[in-house]
Amino acid sequence: MTNKDARTPASTQNPTETSEAAEAGKSIGWHKAYVEGNRPGLRVPVRQVHLTNGQSVTLYDTSGPYTDPLVDTDVRRGLAPLRENWIVARGDTEEYAGRPVRPEDDGIKHTSPRGGLRNLDAVFPGRPRLPRRGREGKAVTQLAYARQGEITPEMEFVAIRENVSPEVVREEIAAGRAVLPANVNHPESEPMIIGKRFLVKVNANIGNSAVTSSIEEEVEKMTWATRWGADTVMDLSTGRNIHTTREWVLRNSPVPIGTVPLYQALEKVDGKAEELTWEIYKDTVIEQAEQGVDYMTVHAGVRLAYVPLTANRKTGIVSRGGSIMAAWCLAHHKESFLYEHFEELCEILAAYDVTYSLGDGLRPGSIADANDEAQFAELRTLGELNRIAKRHNVQTMIEGPGHVPMHKIKENIDLQQEICEEAPFYTLGPLTTDVAPAYDHITSGIGAAMIAWWGTAMLCYVTPKEHLGLPNRDDVKTGVITYKIAAHAADLAKGHPGAQEWDDALSDARFEFRWEDQFNLALDPDTAREFHDETLPAEPAKTAHFCSMCGPKFCSMKISQDIRREHGGSRTEIEEGMARKSREFAAAGNRVYLPIAD
Amino acid sequence: MTNKDARTPASTQNPTETSEAAEAGKSIGWHKAYVEGNRPGLRVPVRQVHLTNGQSVTLYDTSGPYTDPLVDTDVRRGLAPLRENWIVARGDTEEYAGRPVRPEDDGIKHTSPRGGLRNLDAVFPGRPRLPRRGREGKAVTQLAYARQGEITPEMEFVAIRENVSPEVVREEIAAGRAVLPANVNHPESEPMIIGKRFLVKVNANIGNSAVTSSIEEEVEKMTWATRWGADTVMDLSTGRNIHTTREWVLRNSPVPIGTVPLYQALEKVDGKAEELTWEIYKDTVIEQAEQGVDYMTVHAGVRLAYVPLTANRKTGIVSRGGSIMAAWCLAHHKESFLYEHFEELCEILAAYDVTYSLGDGLRPGSIADANDEAQFAELRTLGELNRIAKRHNVQTMIEGPGHVPMHKIKENIDLQQEICEEAPFYTLGPLTTDVAPAYDHITSGIGAAMIAWWGTAMLCYVTPKEHLGLPNRDDVKTGVITYKIAAHAADLAKGHPGAQEWDDALSDARFEFRWEDQFNLALDPDTAREFHDETLPAEPAKTAHFCSMCGPKFCSMKISQDIRREHGGSRTEIEEGMARKSREFAAAGNRVYLPIAD
Repeated sequence: MTNKDARTPASTQNPTETSEAAEAGKSIGWHKAYVEGNRPGLRVPVRQVHLTNGQSVTLYDTSGPYTDPLVDTDVRRGLAPLRENWIVARGDTEEYAGRPVRPEDDGIKHTSPRGGLRNLDAVFPGRPRLPRRGREGKAVTQLAYARQGEITPEMEFVAIRENVSPEVVREEIAAGRAVLPANVNHPESEPMIIGKRFLVKVNANIGNSAVTSSIEEEVEKMTWATRWGADTVMDLSTGRNIHTTREWVLRNSPVPIGTVPLYQALEKVDGKAEELTWEIYKDTVIEQAEQGVDYMTVHAGVRLAYVPLTANRKTGIVSRGGSIMAAWCLAHHKESFLYEHFEELCEILAAYDVTYSLGDGLRPGSIADANDEAQFAELRTLGELNRIAKRHNVQTMIEGPGHVPMHKIKENIDLQQEICEEAPFYTLGPLTTDVAPAYDHITSGIGAAMIAWWGTAMLCYVTPKEHLGLPNRDDVKTGVITYKIAAHAADLAKGHPGAQEWDDALSDARFEFRWEDQFNLALDPDTAREFHDETLPAEPAKTAHFCSMCGPKFCSMKISQDIRREHGGSRTEIEEGMARKSREFAAAGNRVYLPIAD
Repeated sequence: MTNKDARTPASTQNPTETSEAAEAGKSIGWHKAYVEGNRPGLRVPVRQVHLTNGQSVTLYDTSGPYTDPLVDTDVRRGLAPLRENWIVARGDTEEYAGRPVRPEDDGIKHTSPRGGLRNLDAVFPGRPRLPRRGREGKAVTQLAYARQGEITPEMEFVAIRENVSPEVVREEIAAGRAVLPANVNHPESEPMIIGKRFLVKVNANIGNSAVTSSIEEEVEKMTWATRWGADTVMDLSTGRNIHTTREWVLRNSPVPIGTVPLYQALEKVDGKAEELTWEIYKDTVIEQAEQGVDYMTVHAGVRLAYVPLTANRKTGIVSRGGSIMAAWCLAHHKESFLYEHFEELCEILAAYDVTYSLGDGLRPGSIADANDEAQFAELRTLGELNRIAKRHNVQTMIEGPGHVPMHKIKENIDLQQEICEEAPFYTLGPLTTDVAPAYDHITSGIGAAMIAWWGTAMLCYVTPKEHLGLPNRDDVKTGVITYKIAAHAADLAKGHPGAQEWDDALSDARFEFRWEDQFNLALDPDTAREFHDETLPAEPAKTAHFCSMCGPKFCSMKISQDIRREHGGSRTEIEEGMARKSREFAAAGNRVYLPIAD
């Protein structure tokens, strides 16, 4: 799992920075910097943490231009189209009129009692654009390019982000072991890669629902989630304004956006699953592809014959998409239209470079149902669909569970890797127990860390509100941080190059009582600082050689330092000098506890 | 790891209950009940959850008499001495005058500027008592009894709690694979067992420090921690009133109490490690044993020769006890007095049935230092000490790390089990990454679940404040709940008999939209209910067949139920009737979504 072709880790590279930003950054402990690539204009954002000992640490950054004080962002205008020149320069795509936006795209009926059509021409007035798609006969996916031996700017970008060589990126994509979700209609996104040879990624879900939430809230949740480290965001909106919400999210998102087109399709047939058709679904996929959705969950593995396999389950079918397709199959007593039309769907996705996220509609929803026949039957079908998708040059990842007790987790990832030819696995947790609603970020964070260590490429976060309610801002943050922990713990266990440098920098700061450095290096500096100040609020405590847990007399770190200071720096020195030092120590008054600085 | 001798799981036993308590319980969803043993008066407390479908689920309960409305508790009087009759009936112990309580036991100097000696005769005025110890030549430990083939009332008590036969309990204790910490001077405690064949246990730390906190707060933290599921509590107080605080905690604690006597011994020499002596330490151990401390952390494995092994570490020695002993060894250039006097210490502990928790003073304090030579050198010494302790009939468990990346966790438990002859392992986490201060309950909860699955018997909790400050009430609760999750996830993975019944009951409630049952079965009913109500506060939502996440149209559970209802209950029925049902379904108007109840 180590990268033999690893380049110099980013943390030892020298990010370019304007002296202005760097100076401003030093006062707050970190600033946004950029690592230049070989191509003109290719620069990769990083978070540069300035330590009080004069060193600095460079961390992966998902927060987009919002954290760059030199960039003037405006949600009504959207982000700058970072990738547009690269896409245009390839010359294999074309702009076209696109599908007209219809009222029902936003869930608005002419008979709607709320009446009043929105001005749909002004879905996103900030930057008028025509959709783009591959020219006839052109394969415009990153998979196609990789297979042709081409290293795209997107691949170079992620190579710098991941501290690996561009060739490793190309190889992994070409083999179908990694995906680089990058719809040609989402040029605002900063390229990222999902594959087991790379840093483990985290997805955060947002989305209004029939019950609550608004457009503004969803855009805010997206920027909030990426600020804390979400690598992709799925917009799972199911209510009104679904088209417009998605447009605003896309135009403002620095990370790839995923969706489940089935949800919107169902809205268009008033929630009646049996009235869904391939035509309505296909139209919805095109609608979303034109908007720029980077990856789509498609529940094409829920086949008619598998539905009875769920009959004796404790919790039936818990995937929304899975249950909708199961209901459709039963209502018509027909094979799933998604399965039947899968090749045609591949052609559509290929034209925009939309990545498949093959949904696990039959994933277990409880410990009792884990690793059952229904789940694995669907997985085998996903393996078959993965091969078809690759034939069409469509990038593909595979979704996974769910609820799985610890001793059954490895079987999941091992089977998926075998059946799906090492296609990236993208799991929801899994939750390792059902007994802790309100803490399912934790029940699932445990499973997520384990399955990621064993090869899962991306983790879908779970918030504390899972099973109970809609996540608010705090829940989104807690979910993202918990999953960044799981992902980084897995990066460490996989021996990802450079991963441990972050832990080492923080541990050094801890041992040397550099409190401000500890805070600034933390996944969540704000909360770390706040917790410290709750017990010892005074400013001198930030330079004190102890903390509130043990107080000055009992601080083991301090005693360790005193031992090291008194007895020399290295093991050999200590061994040689121990007896002598012991005498000196006594002669000096046996002062184990030096006076505290403050 | 399964219990072949498993009895009927407690959840199908029939706890006795007063109809009064049961009736009161039904209105709040659960009540305290008791399972009667074979001996007169032996009754094991359980939490009886009443479901709205008329069934009930019985859960392990650590909360003591405080949750029994029929018991009148008063912290000034202490809890009733549940085990006293059993201890007296054995006839192998005697009361004696005991060691006089001295001002310095509470950290009070005659020269103290705060002056004013407390009335030390009245350390705990509520229930005057004489200390008790084993009679000359009598082996009064549960280990000794187990080896003699005796099943004590304490063993029967835990057998009922664990759903195993008393003989399994006796065997595991006799073999040194489990401990039942039960000082003869802590008759208030409800017997519990720590061993890999039993439910994974959780310890919560409390303790004032030189910097903050009070006696009342510590007693309150103890009852609060046990309310949420702490199986034992360690009092790690290091400041003033250390003796009195401990007395109040012990007299009011329904769970075993652990301490680190070295902390108090150090207070007695004004924090000067080099002035510690065996005599002062021994006197402190006797002081605490007479009070009733059930297990003591002893850092006897930190030998002089191992200190240099920590010199090149990133974070040196992070165990307080370890660093104190290291400083002592270096100051005197002598072997540790704890190691030198270990046999004598065994004799003292045996007289009161105090259990050893052999401390890992050289545990790693960062990812970089995990599984190093210092750690494993000490572990080998702990193996040697474990054999000596067993020779003296002293029950023994072994403490473990600390900070360990996931891929190095299994090596820890495997080595410990091998070197220490399967003695119970008691680990602190381990934390699986260093980068998330303020979330170390989660970084460590991941490691804790894994190491417990692989055989660790008890987990020492970590709160969100770890590395940053002293835990408050909320932090204690979060730490306990997180660790109960880790412990239960491990119980599931180990296949502990009856463990999954809890998950199954909650999942059934979830699938059947029994919201109140979900809340009452949750590890933390209060927060689960609160989170639900944040989005859908109205009372009808508690019986609604959907929740706020997806709204009524998209509820997969509801669709699953509809499928099941429409298409028959079992797999065979579904297969046979699918085509027919499909036609009926269409004929009935294809109603996938039934009208919502409210």
